[in-house]
Amino acid sequence: MNAYRPQAADIGFILFDVLQAQDRLAQLPALADNADPDLLRQVLEEAGKFVGEVVAPLNRDGDEIGARFKDGAVTMPPGARAAYQAFWQAGWPALSGATEDGGQGLPTVLEMVLYEWLSGANLGWTMAPGLLHGAYECIKHHASPELKASYLEKLVTGEWLATMCLTEPHAGSDLGLARTKAVVQSDGSYQISGTKIFISGGEHDLSDNIVHLVLARLPDSPPGPKGLSLFLVPKFYPDGQRSAVVCERIEEKMGLHGSPTCVMRFDEARGWLVGELGKGLNAMFLMMNAARLHVALQGVGLLDAAWQKADGYARERRQMRAPVRQDPSQPADPIIEHPAVQRLLDTQRAWVDAGRVLAYRTAIELDVAKHHPDAAQRQQANLWCALVTPLLKASWTDQAFHGGSDCLQVFGGHGYVREWGIEQIVRDSRVAMIYEGTNEIQAQDLLFRKVLADQGAGLLATLGGLEQDLDRFDSAAAVRARTGLQQLRELVGLLQAGGPGVALQLYPVAGDFLRVVTLTLMAWAWARLDAAGAAGQGGTAFARWVWPELAMRQLMIRQALGAAA
Amino acid sequence: MNAYRPQAADIGFILFDVLQAQDRLAQLPALADNADPDLLRQVLEEAGKFVGEVVAPLNRDGDEIGARFKDGAVTMPPGARAAYQAFWQAGWPALSGATEDGGQGLPTVLEMVLYEWLSGANLGWTMAPGLLHGAYECIKHHASPELKASYLEKLVTGEWLATMCLTEPHAGSDLGLARTKAVVQSDGSYQISGTKIFISGGEHDLSDNIVHLVLARLPDSPPGPKGLSLFLVPKFYPDGQRSAVVCERIEEKMGLHGSPTCVMRFDEARGWLVGELGKGLNAMFLMMNAARLHVALQGVGLLDAAWQKADGYARERRQMRAPVRQDPSQPADPIIEHPAVQRLLDTQRAWVDAGRVLAYRTAIELDVAKHHPDAAQRQQANLWCALVTPLLKASWTDQAFHGGSDCLQVFGGHGYVREWGIEQIVRDSRVAMIYEGTNEIQAQDLLFRKVLADQGAGLLATLGGLEQDLDRFDSAAAVRARTGLQQLRELVGLLQAGGPGVALQLYPVAGDFLRVVTLTLMAWAWARLDAAGAAGQGGTAFARWVWPELAMRQLMIRQALGAAA
Repeated sequence: MNAYRPQAADIGFILFDVLQAQDRLAQLPALADNADPDLLRQVLEEAGKFVGEVVAPLNRDGDEIGARFKDGAVTMPPGARAAYQAFWQAGWPALSGATEDGGQGLPTVLEMVLYEWLSGANLGWTMAPGLLHGAYECIKHHASPELKASYLEKLVTGEWLATMCLTEPHAGSDLGLARTKAVVQSDGSYQISGTKIFISGGEHDLSDNIVHLVLARLPDSPPGPKGLSLFLVPKFYPDGQRSAVVCERIEEKMGLHGSPTCVMRFDEARGWLVGELGKGLNAMFLMMNAARLHVALQGVGLLDAAWQKADGYARERRQMRAPVRQDPSQPADPIIEHPAVQRLLDTQRAWVDAGRVLAYRTAIELDVAKHHPDAAQRQQANLWCALVTPLLKASWTDQAFHGGSDCLQVFGGHGYVREWGIEQIVRDSRVAMIYEGTNEIQAQDLLFRKVLADQGAGLLATLGGLEQDLDRFDSAAAVRARTGLQQLRELVGLLQAGGPGVALQLYPVAGDFLRVVTLTLMAWAWARLDAAGAAGQGGTAFARWVWPELAMRQLMIRQALGAAA
Repeated sequence: MNAYRPQAADIGFILFDVLQAQDRLAQLPALADNADPDLLRQVLEEAGKFVGEVVAPLNRDGDEIGARFKDGAVTMPPGARAAYQAFWQAGWPALSGATEDGGQGLPTVLEMVLYEWLSGANLGWTMAPGLLHGAYECIKHHASPELKASYLEKLVTGEWLATMCLTEPHAGSDLGLARTKAVVQSDGSYQISGTKIFISGGEHDLSDNIVHLVLARLPDSPPGPKGLSLFLVPKFYPDGQRSAVVCERIEEKMGLHGSPTCVMRFDEARGWLVGELGKGLNAMFLMMNAARLHVALQGVGLLDAAWQKADGYARERRQMRAPVRQDPSQPADPIIEHPAVQRLLDTQRAWVDAGRVLAYRTAIELDVAKHHPDAAQRQQANLWCALVTPLLKASWTDQAFHGGSDCLQVFGGHGYVREWGIEQIVRDSRVAMIYEGTNEIQAQDLLFRKVLADQGAGLLATLGGLEQDLDRFDSAAAVRARTGLQQLRELVGLLQAGGPGVALQLYPVAGDFLRVVTLTLMAWAWARLDAAGAAGQGGTAFARWVWPELAMRQLMIRQALGAAA
């Protein structure tokens, strides 16, 4: 089994040579002092060390021993608590938190890189801390001053962890069906009662307290999503008393055994309203948006981890003669010299590198949207994040599973057994296509809420920005990207011309539309990577093995619209 | 958890209404008496009952308890031995064995349907009996009269089970690297020494004896594949003595826990030569060819099982409003009314039904190749099997895993937990893309050994037969199939015109070529299904969601050849 290693230099290349993050961040007064590449590289180096040396080695036990449940308590896998205590005490969860809350005020993109690596190293361990950042934002923007006083610093530092209690047995993608009850008390608190399922980190021993954010409904609230409000219920109250929140059991799952997936029962548990009554989903969506970019980076991290394993193995394992580069001194050639294997590995590089360019840019735009002095720039940045987050989440979690499975294939039978840890990646990655909104819901979000809602205006404006950016380059990669952008404009034109019936025709091809936008943005990313001098194999693989999917997707969409192919 | 149910009527429709199997089988003197549809339907009904009532219920325990290893012995999961004893005593393994060997002399296609169902019901249990049929053919055609006298009847009835001992730690896809030694003894027997890995059913308690077929090398044999010979080493000799074959351990795997994957050590174990010295791979390939069609049908069976589960769940589970068929009396609509879910389910039907048409036809051609009085017909049938077997194996095992994962997606988070059994299908199915020759090797086999070896002549002749068959139809499905066949002819023309360098250009696109031929044959299968009045959803899904892949694959191949797109 070869261990996952974060590569800080690769990340630095994408951040500073490809994306020129330093220039963009320097425009933001809140971050300008912390935009120096040398400083950021140094933080990345340290983060990479922590992930590689402390978190990665726990991954196998996390899978094989897993989180264990007994009498309402969850014991995390060996080493998990110690690693988490070291993690928060070293300040890693606070990396991008606001300094006024006790955070370090570094750019959000650093947090995203950190979580990409943590996910590649050990997704099971990473699940609980991964939810912290959304909870922090949610409390910061929606909670009362009293709640903030008790919880905000504990969350920004990560001393306490947090959960999102949304799903109920009959209410998954359709949260509006949730039935958990909240009854107001004379002191202004609420009694929360109901059962929530699929609660990642609902119970564990990583941290000394757990802060639950719970969607519930007042007895007189309207049915559906507008009747839902958000409440905070801690495991332990500030006075040390335990709340009436019980972990009933943890799920047996395909993978991610290191992360307890809990059934949580609330028995008239005392909690407090976060945000306004009936606006629970709005406050929750703030958490979910942050979480979606995290999940996209889980995909990138797991795919890179799978590639690292398969690439290492393919260089060592010798089977059969390669068609070109043969070594007659050996009985067989390294399987990386077999074109089918080489193609498969390079294809994952094409996805990892383009995914990083797009995800890191999105993380930078999140800071621009928050901190840029110019309102127009903030709006553009918001638009970018709204459009790109769902496709990053869907396409890169999809690729983590399918590309991870391709990497397993490199090992042959040795990939199907535990030995090399590659089958764990395939099992662990599968859930990311489901949680934080299934990938089908991401596709509908992109097409209906982000593109058709404004008749494509926002998407076209964003494409215009990319076209302008490409004007500087005349490489083959830039030509390909411009062609893709032009074809996407034509497709948007078809949607605009489609009239009121177009939405119905588009339902079954929302996923294809998401892929078209994904591939087009990847083409832009590869033009930028190419211009910065990125190694050629990923770029060639993108052009030869990834890009042709566009023709198929366009065909499916045009057929659905009844348009000429 | 909803259980897998074999559907005998669906199979009868494909065999007798779509493929007119009865007419083809009636041409074969050896089978003409057993080609009556009523008889065959009755056998299918009984087989379906056995699979559904006896084998399917053991699947969950097979996964959760699994095969257990202790001190060299393997205990199979609860109920497995009893089910196997009932299975062979009821005559199921002997279904298609020759009557002169103790078999029932029924058409091979019945055996294939039986194994499709067994795989859908419980692949772990099915692994060991699945190897029996290749071993029987191998002994029948290559073993000495003495060996046959001891082993043939035991294998045709299934009273004893068998293994294929090929792989060694350093010799997987490249069997020529195998080092296991065979030293001849004065009595003409051999002493076999070495370690074999990934031996499915190497040790278990299903049957009272296990017959190992082992690839090994004489001390003075040449290196490489031509130095390998095949030997028979039983667990127990006819006199009841135990042989020096030891199961050292069983593997921890991603799935298929019901099937022990054994490391087998041979310590100067006494065995006998099967076939000629140095021709071990030839004898083994006979086993592997039979096994490859079995594995293709594992894919079909698992995909059908996944579809059955997802279809059932999607009709019950209600989330959100459907865009068209809404039921205002309920808080939400069944998710099958959501177009993304409907598309996903129908796509699996397109694959299952076309897979059955092609695999059953291949099974029928196997009998034609063996039994037809006309040599030209036998040759055509052999050609069909040689071309179609590798693509059936690769494309349908691929679809079982990827389509199985799509079916998991229908369940959302409930699919990632054990509850419904769908994640087990995804884990169990993954290995079929690897064993019996990885899917990459199937693609190379098709392109290099089956198509380029005769400059495409055999493929073009086979396509001609399909074109002739389609002349009877003028449906949209038939037009699509004719277009595909014509495009494939053009592609073969490009390969023929490519000159000596074409093979090198084609290495990385062998998999794309296999997909092009797969899709083209599926189009033919759907034209036949359509003509027989098959329900429309699979056919529509094929046209809309499966067929457009052809454009992408052709693009990749043409680019690799440097041809205009």
